Amino acid sequence: MGDFRPSDDTREQEIQGEVVSDALISSVQGALAENQPKKILQLIEPLVPADVAFLLERLHPENRQKLLYILHPKLEGDVLPHLSPAVLVSVVDIIGIPRLAVLLPELDSDDAFAILEELDEQQQQMLLRAIPKENRLSFEKLMTYPEDSAARILQQEVVIAPSFWTVGALVQYVQRAEGLPEEFYEIYVVNPKHEPIGKIPLNQLLRVKPQALVSEIMNPDIHALSATMKQEAVAYAFRHYDLVSAPVVDEANRIIGMITADDVVDVMDVEAQKEMKQLAGVENADINAPILLTSYHRMAGLLVTFVNSFILAIVVYHYEHLIEQRVALVGLMPIVAGMSGAMGTQVIAVTVRSLSNKMISSANTWRIIGKEAAIGSINGLFFSVVLMIILMFWYEDCSLGLILIGALIFNMTWAAFSGVALPIMVDRLGLDPAVSTGPVLTAITDVIGFVSLLALASVFL
Amino acid sequence: MGDFRPSDDTREQEIQGEVVSDALISSVQGALAENQPKKILQLIEPLVPADVAFLLERLHPENRQKLLYILHPKLEGDVLPHLSPAVLVSVVDIIGIPRLAVLLPELDSDDAFAILEELDEQQQQMLLRAIPKENRLSFEKLMTYPEDSAARILQQEVVIAPSFWTVGALVQYVQRAEGLPEEFYEIYVVNPKHEPIGKIPLNQLLRVKPQALVSEIMNPDIHALSATMKQEAVAYAFRHYDLVSAPVVDEANRIIGMITADDVVDVMDVEAQKEMKQLAGVENADINAPILLTSYHRMAGLLVTFVNSFILAIVVYHYEHLIEQRVALVGLMPIVAGMSGAMGTQVIAVTVRSLSNKMISSANTWRIIGKEAAIGSINGLFFSVVLMIILMFWYEDCSLGLILIGALIFNMTWAAFSGVALPIMVDRLGLDPAVSTGPVLTAITDVIGFVSLLALASVFL
Repeated sequence: MGDFRPSDDTREQEIQGEVVSDALISSVQGALAENQPKKILQLIEPLVPADVAFLLERLHPENRQKLLYILHPKLEGDVLPHLSPAVLVSVVDIIGIPRLAVLLPELDSDDAFAILEELDEQQQQMLLRAIPKENRLSFEKLMTYPEDSAARILQQEVVIAPSFWTVGALVQYVQRAEGLPEEFYEIYVVNPKHEPIGKIPLNQLLRVKPQALVSEIMNPDIHALSATMKQEAVAYAFRHYDLVSAPVVDEANRIIGMITADDVVDVMDVEAQKEMKQLAGVENADINAPILLTSYHRMAGLLVTFVNSFILAIVVYHYEHLIEQRVALVGLMPIVAGMSGAMGTQVIAVTVRSLSNKMISSANTWRIIGKEAAIGSINGLFFSVVLMIILMFWYEDCSLGLILIGALIFNMTWAAFSGVALPIMVDRLGLDPAVSTGPVLTAITDVIGFVSLLALASVFL
Repeated sequence: MGDFRPSDDTREQEIQGEVVSDALISSVQGALAENQPKKILQLIEPLVPADVAFLLERLHPENRQKLLYILHPKLEGDVLPHLSPAVLVSVVDIIGIPRLAVLLPELDSDDAFAILEELDEQQQQMLLRAIPKENRLSFEKLMTYPEDSAARILQQEVVIAPSFWTVGALVQYVQRAEGLPEEFYEIYVVNPKHEPIGKIPLNQLLRVKPQALVSEIMNPDIHALSATMKQEAVAYAFRHYDLVSAPVVDEANRIIGMITADDVVDVMDVEAQKEMKQLAGVENADINAPILLTSYHRMAGLLVTFVNSFILAIVVYHYEHLIEQRVALVGLMPIVAGMSGAMGTQVIAVTVRSLSNKMISSANTWRIIGKEAAIGSINGLFFSVVLMIILMFWYEDCSLGLILIGALIFNMTWAAFSGVALPIMVDRLGLDPAVSTGPVLTAITDVIGFVSLLALASVFL
């Protein structure tokens, strides 16, 4: 931090995007093993807060604890917002709530609030009692908004100006006012009701004369966000309009804070995690969470597959007689189930991404569903032809081949249809975070695949 | 755009994050059907460029073409950067290269370059001949960098200042200079070699005295990015350091441009697409791409499953005799294959996300692999116990149950191990964008699942 110019070595690393080198991590681990607190503090001193957090995240839990005992009297508040939930909780356990109550008010309100959210009920109460009243009241207000809403990531510090000011007066205000955000890129212009009516990017403020009126130079395209709007929609608005910051308004359309691009980048990361969840049926991607908790979180996704396997076993049981006669069928069942499962997974992935990008609206839903079903049929047909050729040499039994091909084309079309229709349905019903469409679809394609092949075989063989 | 205050209706929509309403899309479709160009232009006039692009994306290709014929003499260049590749190509076909050559130089250089990149070789040559020489030379320079590199998304317009200037001189420069970026948030301080040595956020510039020296007020934590660095690493650096913009330097450490947070948001979107690809084996998520091209892109992922199915068929063929004796085995095979497949997919999803977040370094690789394998065993054990209880009532055949349980625990542990080890291996070998680990893993778990169950059965039954 104190370094004016980083050494050539760290400079090279930084340029390559490697933030904390493996070599540094090893040195810290070595110094911890040898119990050399002075050396550790020396190693850590040049790191910016984000890098201290990076280091803490990557240490073994035991070493992390050791390091924190050495570090905590000097720990800067700015490190905390960079920690993942599991690591943050263990850090709070070591530094204690009273120390946290000192560090928190120094942070921007969005970062402080994000930390508060991760604590358990009892810790939250303790912390709220220990921090200054003004912080407490504003946190309590934010906590009344839904968990996934814009309000939960806004920062209350924001620069606003009435439209009748001159640019000169505005600049003077910025120079003298207290409680302004640590960083800001735009000033929001408000009317007497405190409603946003325009914005002035700072680079534009620099380029106009001091005599100009704020109302003359402001840009009326403000893209204000509602406090109750979903964070996902906030991220989309930033991407769509290439925003760097945007004001947030309450129900009465009054400015209550702003959201900046760096918060949105974090939201996008959470959204990517949700998309993966839809596809893979996995609850929590925090690699630092305890083993048993993680194991428990994975159960739900596995349960769908477990139940599905039993349905398959029942299907097989039902057709046992047929299978005994034609064991070759057993080898073909995975072809139908596997191909339609793979097709369905592809289509879900594309659909989930397209929903995130708002590429699917009610105007084109049916066109897209039809298109995906068509792609399913085409690919089903293609692999059927290949399969036909292979089977002609292998089995020399045309009837079995024809049945397989019928089942394959039907199932791949059906899988493509479900793969696009299922996530759209989940989205329209507003179930987004609750349902993992991936495992459900695999279950459906497996069962339909087995049943259709066996049913066709029982009729035609 | 001319609207000072949007009407209550559009205001409500904007706040809810809905950028172009379905009602507006319908109105445009209606006006297109009735051939009313005047009405269409009226409907579109109030839209900002990003929203015009949004509308074009969501129209049926035929309607899109109709709309473009009406719109193209008035089409603003700012619309183009918001279009997806498939739609951009069709827009260029209609407006033509000469018109594009007029629109392009008005854009920021990163946007212009992104459009150039989407054209085919012949169109690129035509366009490069038609644009001003200075643009051509700078584009040709950027094209020498790798496709996935930081250079490809940088914007060459950047504000730099020598460290010996006063703040007053710097502000005067910003007010008078030409060719500055449309928007910027920081000024980079350079030494005589044009190397970045500090930055001044604009909000800080506003708050200091004109007599202060640039060298006194600048922040030396610049986080300069190398032009050859991967875009993925750029996105990580922005997230990690909460950056809003960063300078990009060439091999000699000279500033050649900057990258801003809005570009990074787009990169993150592309990265999310890549992660989905790893998991689902799907090449291209552009929902507007032509059917046959999409169908072709999906083949590669399906081929893995196809080959896999045949291996399974061969396994079954090999154990045909055993299966004929114990048809109940057929019902159990999908339990082992399905559960380990689902487990593996979960672990891949978590691992791919953790790699993106650089949560896995060489310091903790083995700990994480061990942890995931342990979670696999625990969940395998849990479902085995449940299975045991069910089988005791159903089959009343303990030997079959024990074999199934042995196979299940073994396979789920193995799937968890492969699910974490495979993506890490792919990442370390630098194969990232080329390999879809999801379908490969499913193939592995299917085959091992079938073989282990049947092999155990052939030994113990």
